[in-house]
Amino acid sequence: MKGMLYGIGVGPGDSELLTLKAKGAIERCDIIAYPVKKAGEKSTALEIIRPVVDVSSKEIMELLFVMDPSEEVRQEYRDAAMDEMCAAMEAGKDVAMITLGDPCVYSTFMRICNDVRERGYDTEVVSGVPSFCHGAAKAGLPLMLAYEGLAIVPASEENMPKVSVALDDFENIVIMKAFASIDAIIALMNEKGIPLECATVMSNIGMDTEYIGPLVAGRKYGYFTTVLVKKEGSRI
Amino acid sequence: MKGMLYGIGVGPGDSELLTLKAKGAIERCDIIAYPVKKAGEKSTALEIIRPVVDVSSKEIMELLFVMDPSEEVRQEYRDAAMDEMCAAMEAGKDVAMITLGDPCVYSTFMRICNDVRERGYDTEVVSGVPSFCHGAAKAGLPLMLAYEGLAIVPASEENMPKVSVALDDFENIVIMKAFASIDAIIALMNEKGIPLECATVMSNIGMDTEYIGPLVAGRKYGYFTTVLVKKEGSRI
Repeated sequence: MKGMLYGIGVGPGDSELLTLKAKGAIERCDIIAYPVKKAGEKSTALEIIRPVVDVSSKEIMELLFVMDPSEEVRQEYRDAAMDEMCAAMEAGKDVAMITLGDPCVYSTFMRICNDVRERGYDTEVVSGVPSFCHGAAKAGLPLMLAYEGLAIVPASEENMPKVSVALDDFENIVIMKAFASIDAIIALMNEKGIPLECATVMSNIGMDTEYIGPLVAGRKYGYFTTVLVKKEGSRI
Repeated sequence: MKGMLYGIGVGPGDSELLTLKAKGAIERCDIIAYPVKKAGEKSTALEIIRPVVDVSSKEIMELLFVMDPSEEVRQEYRDAAMDEMCAAMEAGKDVAMITLGDPCVYSTFMRICNDVRERGYDTEVVSGVPSFCHGAAKAGLPLMLAYEGLAIVPASEENMPKVSVALDDFENIVIMKAFASIDAIIALMNEKGIPLECATVMSNIGMDTEYIGPLVAGRKYGYFTTVLVKKEGSRI
């Protein structure tokens, strides 16, 4: 019998935020697969599950997904990763591909899931807690209440027009991947007359270097930085 | 020693989507508190945890939060709920207030959390899997990829202008509480030239009456209905 592929969200960093379902599925699988951007890279997702899942008896599979500018090159790597996983499933092994946060939020798993199904294998997505939920929880702030909306936008230089639209049209805005764009975000907020006090920075959530606090011009923040802007203010 | 208050997300419906942390926190607490809109109402959150947490040894506390149009009346009910929980904490008892999905996503807990802290009690938010993540997982669709944004908006008659803006400006839109506004959503999509094939309806996720499928004019959907619109199409 063929194996199947699980796409498993391991949550934002705290091992205890793994779901019962994720823990059970990983434990039942023969292989734990994890994506990396460079060969040999340490996997945060694997580190997250270690304290709560015994991985010593599992086969570990590193899947290389490079960040090449060419979509064709990226697809080649995805094809190679699928080849490797499908070969294992053909041999009857179940594969747990683990991913940070939730698989439906910016994860490579959803790019390959359909293709794997089309190759004739069963797949299942196991939801996880997204990082922005945990960040808001740690900051003690709701993402949204009542009939408010929430916009989630990643910040990059080319993406700032989208951030601008989100700041115009929504009460609550989660700006992800904000590390390199902090100055541009501050400039946008100033331009729109949104006080910086409306922003809460959430950096390296769940890590030793975790920071949750105000957005301050000139200050350096960690690589995994999300900014939550609540235009009605950060008080409820 | 005073007890403390936990706001615990129990996820979207599947008991196995409870996090290890939520299960542990509820098990350690003396009291399980749950919000209802009417006295004596059945609690979905309580039903979700039953199969994975032994609630028989716990004190159960029903908290009534009415949906009165007057904010003053609603605040009176919140004050009464806080009085009851704080009295228990004063007696040294830990309280687990359980809430569907994630506490930072439209939950009453975040409305009272600050006030409870100001009354001098410790609080902790335990994140859960939001329903829209699980709905997308069940539909086999990513919420967003790469540099895409996601807008989450609740639909109600007065809120349709916000839904309209979200449909204009975002690639991916989650329309929550869509039960009574399906026709208005279809009208908006038609007006904007967004094919109905771009929408996936997710109803009563995790329940016996679960439905995941196309958005069809004239069809009746369940009370807990969310619509996911992906303007690039529902195929990846």
